[in-house]
Amino acid sequence: MTSSAANGGTALDRFWTGDYYNEGVGGKDSIFDKLKEECGVFGVFGHPDAANLSYYGLHALQHRGEESCGICTADEESFHYHRGMGLVKEVFDRDKLEALTGNQAIGHVRYSTAGASKLANAQPLVFKYRGGDLAVCTNGNLVNEPGIRKELEDSGSIFQTTSDTEVIAHLIARSPKDLVQAVKEAFARLIGGFAFLIQTQGRLIAACDPHGLRPLVMGKLGDAYIFASESCALETIGAVYVRDVQPGELLVLDQDGLHEDRFAPMVRRAVCAMEYIYFARPDSDIYGVNLHSSRKRMGQQLAQESFVDADIVTGVPDSSISAAIGYAEQTGIPYELGLIKNKYTGRTFIQPSQELREKGVKMKLSAVRKVVEGKRVVMIDDSIVRGTTSLRIVNMLREAGALEVHVRITSPPFMNPCYYGIDTPNPADLIASSKTVEEIRQAINADSLYFLSDTGLIDSIGGHDEEFNRGLCMACFNNDYPTPVEFEEAKTTSCGCD
Amino acid sequence: MTSSAANGGTALDRFWTGDYYNEGVGGKDSIFDKLKEECGVFGVFGHPDAANLSYYGLHALQHRGEESCGICTADEESFHYHRGMGLVKEVFDRDKLEALTGNQAIGHVRYSTAGASKLANAQPLVFKYRGGDLAVCTNGNLVNEPGIRKELEDSGSIFQTTSDTEVIAHLIARSPKDLVQAVKEAFARLIGGFAFLIQTQGRLIAACDPHGLRPLVMGKLGDAYIFASESCALETIGAVYVRDVQPGELLVLDQDGLHEDRFAPMVRRAVCAMEYIYFARPDSDIYGVNLHSSRKRMGQQLAQESFVDADIVTGVPDSSISAAIGYAEQTGIPYELGLIKNKYTGRTFIQPSQELREKGVKMKLSAVRKVVEGKRVVMIDDSIVRGTTSLRIVNMLREAGALEVHVRITSPPFMNPCYYGIDTPNPADLIASSKTVEEIRQAINADSLYFLSDTGLIDSIGGHDEEFNRGLCMACFNNDYPTPVEFEEAKTTSCGCD
Amino acid sequence: MTSSAANGGTALDRFWTGDYYNEGVGGKDSIFDKLKEECGVFGVFGHPDAANLSYYGLHALQHRGEESCGICTADEESFHYHRGMGLVKEVFDRDKLEALTGNQAIGHVRYSTAGASKLANAQPLVFKYRGGDLAVCTNGNLVNEPGIRKELEDSGSIFQTTSDTEVIAHLIARSPKDLVQAVKEAFARLIGGFAFLIQTQGRLIAACDPHGLRPLVMGKLGDAYIFASESCALETIGAVYVRDVQPGELLVLDQDGLHEDRFAPMVRRAVCAMEYIYFARPDSDIYGVNLHSSRKRMGQQLAQESFVDADIVTGVPDSSISAAIGYAEQTGIPYELGLIKNKYTGRTFIQPSQELREKGVKMKLSAVRKVVEGKRVVMIDDSIVRGTTSLRIVNMLREAGALEVHVRITSPPFMNPCYYGIDTPNPADLIASSKTVEEIRQAINADSLYFLSDTGLIDSIGGHDEEFNRGLCMACFNNDYPTPVEFEEAKTTSCGCD
Amino acid sequence: MTSSAANGGTALDRFWTGDYYNEGVGGKDSIFDKLKEECGVFGVFGHPDAANLSYYGLHALQHRGEESCGICTADEESFHYHRGMGLVKEVFDRDKLEALTGNQAIGHVRYSTAGASKLANAQPLVFKYRGGDLAVCTNGNLVNEPGIRKELEDSGSIFQTTSDTEVIAHLIARSPKDLVQAVKEAFARLIGGFAFLIQTQGRLIAACDPHGLRPLVMGKLGDAYIFASESCALETIGAVYVRDVQPGELLVLDQDGLHEDRFAPMVRRAVCAMEYIYFARPDSDIYGVNLHSSRKRMGQQLAQESFVDADIVTGVPDSSISAAIGYAEQTGIPYELGLIKNKYTGRTFIQPSQELREKGVKMKLSAVRKVVEGKRVVMIDDSIVRGTTSLRIVNMLREAGALEVHVRITSPPFMNPCYYGIDTPNPADLIASSKTVEEIRQAINADSLYFLSDTGLIDSIGGHDEEFNRGLCMACFNNDYPTPVEFEEAKTTSCGCD
Repeated sequence: MTSSAANGGTALDRFWTGDYYNEGVGGKDSIFDKLKEECGVFGVFGHPDAANLSYYGLHALQHRGEESCGICTADEESFHYHRGMGLVKEVFDRDKLEALTGNQAIGHVRYSTAGASKLANAQPLVFKYRGGDLAVCTNGNLVNEPGIRKELEDSGSIFQTTSDTEVIAHLIARSPKDLVQAVKEAFARLIGGFAFLIQTQGRLIAACDPHGLRPLVMGKLGDAYIFASESCALETIGAVYVRDVQPGELLVLDQDGLHEDRFAPMVRRAVCAMEYIYFARPDSDIYGVNLHSSRKRMGQQLAQESFVDADIVTGVPDSSISAAIGYAEQTGIPYELGLIKNKYTGRTFIQPSQELREKGVKMKLSAVRKVVEGKRVVMIDDSIVRGTTSLRIVNMLREAGALEVHVRITSPPFMNPCYYGIDTPNPADLIASSKTVEEIRQAINADSLYFLSDTGLIDSIGGHDEEFNRGLCMACFNNDYPTPVEFEEAKTTSCGCD
Repeated sequence: MTSSAANGGTALDRFWTGDYYNEGVGGKDSIFDKLKEECGVFGVFGHPDAANLSYYGLHALQHRGEESCGICTADEESFHYHRGMGLVKEVFDRDKLEALTGNQAIGHVRYSTAGASKLANAQPLVFKYRGGDLAVCTNGNLVNEPGIRKELEDSGSIFQTTSDTEVIAHLIARSPKDLVQAVKEAFARLIGGFAFLIQTQGRLIAACDPHGLRPLVMGKLGDAYIFASESCALETIGAVYVRDVQPGELLVLDQDGLHEDRFAPMVRRAVCAMEYIYFARPDSDIYGVNLHSSRKRMGQQLAQESFVDADIVTGVPDSSISAAIGYAEQTGIPYELGLIKNKYTGRTFIQPSQELREKGVKMKLSAVRKVVEGKRVVMIDDSIVRGTTSLRIVNMLREAGALEVHVRITSPPFMNPCYYGIDTPNPADLIASSKTVEEIRQAINADSLYFLSDTGLIDSIGGHDEEFNRGLCMACFNNDYPTPVEFEEAKTTSCGCD
Repeated sequence: MTSSAANGGTALDRFWTGDYYNEGVGGKDSIFDKLKEECGVFGVFGHPDAANLSYYGLHALQHRGEESCGICTADEESFHYHRGMGLVKEVFDRDKLEALTGNQAIGHVRYSTAGASKLANAQPLVFKYRGGDLAVCTNGNLVNEPGIRKELEDSGSIFQTTSDTEVIAHLIARSPKDLVQAVKEAFARLIGGFAFLIQTQGRLIAACDPHGLRPLVMGKLGDAYIFASESCALETIGAVYVRDVQPGELLVLDQDGLHEDRFAPMVRRAVCAMEYIYFARPDSDIYGVNLHSSRKRMGQQLAQESFVDADIVTGVPDSSISAAIGYAEQTGIPYELGLIKNKYTGRTFIQPSQELREKGVKMKLSAVRKVVEGKRVVMIDDSIVRGTTSLRIVNMLREAGALEVHVRITSPPFMNPCYYGIDTPNPADLIASSKTVEEIRQAINADSLYFLSDTGLIDSIGGHDEEFNRGLCMACFNNDYPTPVEFEEAKTTSCGCD
Repeated sequence: MTSSAANGGTALDRFWTGDYYNEGVGGKDSIFDKLKEECGVFGVFGHPDAANLSYYGLHALQHRGEESCGICTADEESFHYHRGMGLVKEVFDRDKLEALTGNQAIGHVRYSTAGASKLANAQPLVFKYRGGDLAVCTNGNLVNEPGIRKELEDSGSIFQTTSDTEVIAHLIARSPKDLVQAVKEAFARLIGGFAFLIQTQGRLIAACDPHGLRPLVMGKLGDAYIFASESCALETIGAVYVRDVQPGELLVLDQDGLHEDRFAPMVRRAVCAMEYIYFARPDSDIYGVNLHSSRKRMGQQLAQESFVDADIVTGVPDSSISAAIGYAEQTGIPYELGLIKNKYTGRTFIQPSQELREKGVKMKLSAVRKVVEGKRVVMIDDSIVRGTTSLRIVNMLREAGALEVHVRITSPPFMNPCYYGIDTPNPADLIASSKTVEEIRQAINADSLYFLSDTGLIDSIGGHDEEFNRGLCMACFNNDYPTPVEFEEAKTTSCGCD
């Protein structure tokens, strides 16, 4: 394992950048083995190019999961599916796509620890049950999955994966009722944050947890219906956004068209704030709010809450560029490219040895000496998890000649674990759970440090819409979990995809 | 699809030679899509090199299945497994083997139609159930699998593969009893021909169907126990043969050593005659009978039953070489290399186009002109299934200048489907089911044709041991099936591995 | 071939994005077959980790050539080298790097049309000659290469590649003088723009053409010397920038250290302006000028020369982001993420079919509807070559709801072919060679269009330093070539790397 | 390196079996690094399917070289070629073959130490010279290559490979005369054993050394001409054998058809005896003598020269099966399958560790216990080089229960190095160079040992044809080299292909 991994660093910023491929190599002792993160889902119903559209749709969602992916189509005769380890562009080729015939499809991109032996966990999972063929894929995490799994095992179920998805399939298959009713009853038992796509021959079902923790949008491409974790995937295939799937909703597509149903009453919506801060692509909209724009507002808000006199503003790429530009616009301090990321890193990139790194060989991120030398720098980042990556970047800027480094974070201190699909380290490793802001500032060697306020974050995302503001899950900042989380065997740090 | 496949040919002789890789490319319309054949199993209990030994053991059994393979080990903490499409040497490398820690293992090689999407079917299958981890692999076919599967589905089971193996796992998991008892009860419900290996942490179970249709031997390597479909795998790893697992036996290995048990009473043994005639490696022994020797006796017996005056004897490689030498020895007609096979063909070999083949580009088999020109040739083969391959080879010999071609077959006419794990075409496609020997002779363009008699075959295999002779399944020749086969949904032409 | 390729588009912007992998598949009829572009070189002398440093250095230069790469080291016994098709991270693994022992190395990344058969052209090229082992790699193009090649062929030379590099090796080998003298005499014959690295056991030679058309910098890492096409590669490995290799210089490293020599007198420096505008990484400096900063100034200058009232400024990613921010800063119009690029495209990505593209499936670039809808947009790009890509992007913005699209280009009209290593289409295909600005505006469907002035470009790059300003090659804009280019067989559109 | 390699073993028998892939992994310290062996060439002139025919032809010659291969075609516009590391079926796929257009082709299969960096050595080598495109491939070795190479280097030539082939190309290119004349003059300077194919657009030239040491046959397929190292490749593509290319002949094909010429006078023919004993495929004929038949006669002759009372005869597979059958026929002792080889080994097969091998895990060769137990065994092999492999096989038979092992070798003692393309160890490592037959018998632990006599070998190959008998090179047995071999820098142990 590289020492980068050992040191920790913001787990979050690695999501975006594909480091897991390398860090996962550390093997089962790696602290990253426990990290399991976001995934992405995509579905098509009623289009002859279902597999190809899924390919491009999943490609647009690739940032949500780089480890494995899969597509399952259905034609009149049977299911066709292919899953593999790697990026969408690596797992599929023309031949494989051509074999995926049919006008309906669901697909998945997934994060997790590497290892071919985990191929079994790649989604969509495909089952045969009394009702025929069944394919399921999910993004999110079920808090009460361990209890349901145990109950199922006690009554004789066998499991081939460790995924929440297989639990759902068992629940559906065990019900003697018709598919939709079985799904509704199964979902009614689930506690957590999730977006599901379920496919049988001739039917596609989409559903969101009762709080809407994980995003899922519906679009149309001609007469075909499209579902995707983020709206950018609709744009990519030329589909028109229709609406976000609502909390507790169950949308069923069959030969008669769309049936709008729900498996749970509408309750308090609680969309994951981290999707806005970090996860989703800047060109996506969640509940009508564009991500780039909301991040830019976070930067502007930060400037209002914590102006600092400096020469340049820079953002930690890629996720904090929008916010940095916002901070710059608001303050009039010029935005500059003080940090740059090498876009060619990825799974097969050989990380520098500890020895070479100590001698100065850079990971994929570098400070741009000519830009920062002799400058007072405002460095915008989205979050601080363990603090070690922040320390490394601050030091990098100083070594490149920065006179001062003022760190501004576009989120409040990250203090509590996520139970809804974002992998987080042990609470003890969350620097903000045990240190004051001043202590963190010292730990990351910054000249000043400021975290965006809760209300500042809310306003940046949703403006002053009271209704909307109450619609965010900020439990990782404020400990206010929208669901019960205290189960004896609650899964605390994993995504149910794995 | 190549026309070779379209023409049919002895399905059997392609088993040996790996053609399916290419012919399978024909896709789902290919007649070969329905062909599913033999597999091989291998197990180790009590040896620190369990994974490596499995690698060499499976490599020795590679001829029983070239499509996919897998190994699952168990150490004190968990299972470790890897499965993949391709040959043993392609699927595993040093890193993958090193990751398979533990002193017990089961492994599998498998035939079937190609296609990465079928990776899910690669064995061993690995499950979690109430009792912990469970790995299962099998060689053979369950005649009553469809009924059991339906019953399981009706009570809520889900299936991720089409394999008999998963059915067994469900039966085991559904029983509230302890593992051994659960396995015994599950096996008592099965009708068919099969050899099973089942693994949990700390236990390995081996079992054969009540008729011993599929071979399974036990050996020892120091204190460790070894199981293998054929004895050649014992020899390869330096293990000592102990005995064949008996029909209906259930052997359990745990920390206390070997427990000899059975799940069914001893009934009439009925070992697959085709293992002797064709499938097994010539250096293997089944029930104490060496395969090379028995095949050589088949050739000698053929010579006694049907001598023909000729200049040379040649065998269709590789399976009929032993018999051809026996025929030559018995008659004094010299054995010559009249046919030669290119050993480099395999999955990635590009078959010649129909056009090139018509122009004379050879498939992997060629006649040796210098050897056969101007000669009267006795050509020994092991079986005739559809007759098209025989016709092609006879013509090849004639084109190379053979004056006469006399075909001698080391088995009786193949007339009935196998229900126990050997894939066979539709009975209508079995040339012997509708044609007389004379009609077949004309169809394959031979000067004379003779099939070994039933008693000649029995004597060649087991000598004149009455007991032994009754111990063969020759249903494909004589329609005398050792089990009931008339189920409404009986699987008639597939191996349960898939 | 995708129609994207057929339509042309700015060849330049495809440099950055790796599209050639896909478009090259069109085969020999593709117009892209003739495109040959920039390359990058890297060298180490005197460091025990020479191969590893080269790996990271070439990785930092990856944007200069994605098709193939190679590293050649020398230890006391012999050369060791490895070359392959693909990205640095794909071609090398730990085993391959470990086999490259020695404390000196030269390496190369290269663009060109795809095709494994062109592996022979991957550099460094390695030769044996009377003096022993010789490795050579180059970036740039020799205008008079055809003449020299013909002369060499006429006197009996054979060529295994089409590369300028091999020509140089022949010239060196044919000289009876010692290596340095032979190299100097060889170089004195060359006309063109090039940066060369030459290695023998115990010596490394670096040289730039007499006009300094292609960049090459020298750095130090401890006592070791480093050479690289761009300074970003020094930063990546923690080396200190020492200076740019000067036009006509020949730097020789051996056991006695650095010997500063030259093969040509200092003449008018003429650094490729396109390096500043487009090619080099924004964190690199060329002759002390940072690329990001100079691009930002281009944007500011554009704003001064051609302000337009608008709602947002957006840049075509990735190369025009810096300029767009400059334009925004200067005008006060907010910079927004109006266009986004999918970072996961690459060699194995399947381009959408023409049919799917017509239906709206996006290439890797998308407009962000939420950002541009209802807005008057200033779109900043670096150049217009054929005009087709510009048209596509403008239309993309309009379809996403932009009310107006004002295109501002950070370079003057591109009208003349490059003879120094940048691949350019036939002059007839350069839209600016035959159309007025107004005609181009219509052709790309823009509301307004403005190209940066020559003096504006010069000022943006070098400020008002008269000396520096005369130091740029702007022949593609103003037809003022620093060398003779009118040879009977002059190579006009290729990089000498191929 | 595996200990198998360390132990040595007959280098020759590894030729056949592809072990080099694994043993070569040992790296540069491996004794196998110096081993370079036979190659195979194939050419087509005048057939629209030239590339496909070459694919099948090279596939038939695969046993002559498993390391790398290549095909170069020519159409009216240009050459097209592809070369790669690995088997023919691995290096080529349909796309690659389709790109090789044209109605003429030459191809090559090559042995040598592994390593991707040696890809540069894969043949055919392709050059540009004053006359246009030139492709060359060869089988054999030039004794005086070092001197010619030095002379060329001294006059300024550069070399990118270590192959004799490149030397030839230089000689041709340096001559101002027309191609055929240049080739003839070049060849007149060569001393050694070789078969060459040379291609330009519109011409194909085939030539054999003045002694015919390396085989080369000509055939016709319709109007097209075919050349191949062995006649089996003609048979494979349906071509008709015309004749062997004669010693010193130079056959030129162009639009006017075949021109029969020679570059050297007919001298004493000296065909490599090892081709008959071991190298060539049993279904090939060399100068009209079938290999299987001649090997069978060697076995018969051995029986006459050295009968031993025994229970079974067995051959070391694959090369000694024919001889063993001959021995059995002659003596009446039954031929049995006492040794079996696993046909699935190959490049990616993981050799057992020394530890596992000591514990009994077999390499690819096993003794068949049931066959040899309690038997007196005659074991036929083709040669003994170092003796270590023979020892291992004898011990294997004894461990499997053989009562006696009598070794009979189908060649005289191998005592002298080959200078004509067969790699041989240092003379000091040739066991027969320093030990008597009795000492060798003890060293290999045999009960008796006999080597075929010189005259016995000659008679077995050519019968009693005086003319023919004088036509063999048996220098490795009798030190009678047909060419001078005492050059200061003579290459003694390599094939000029590398």
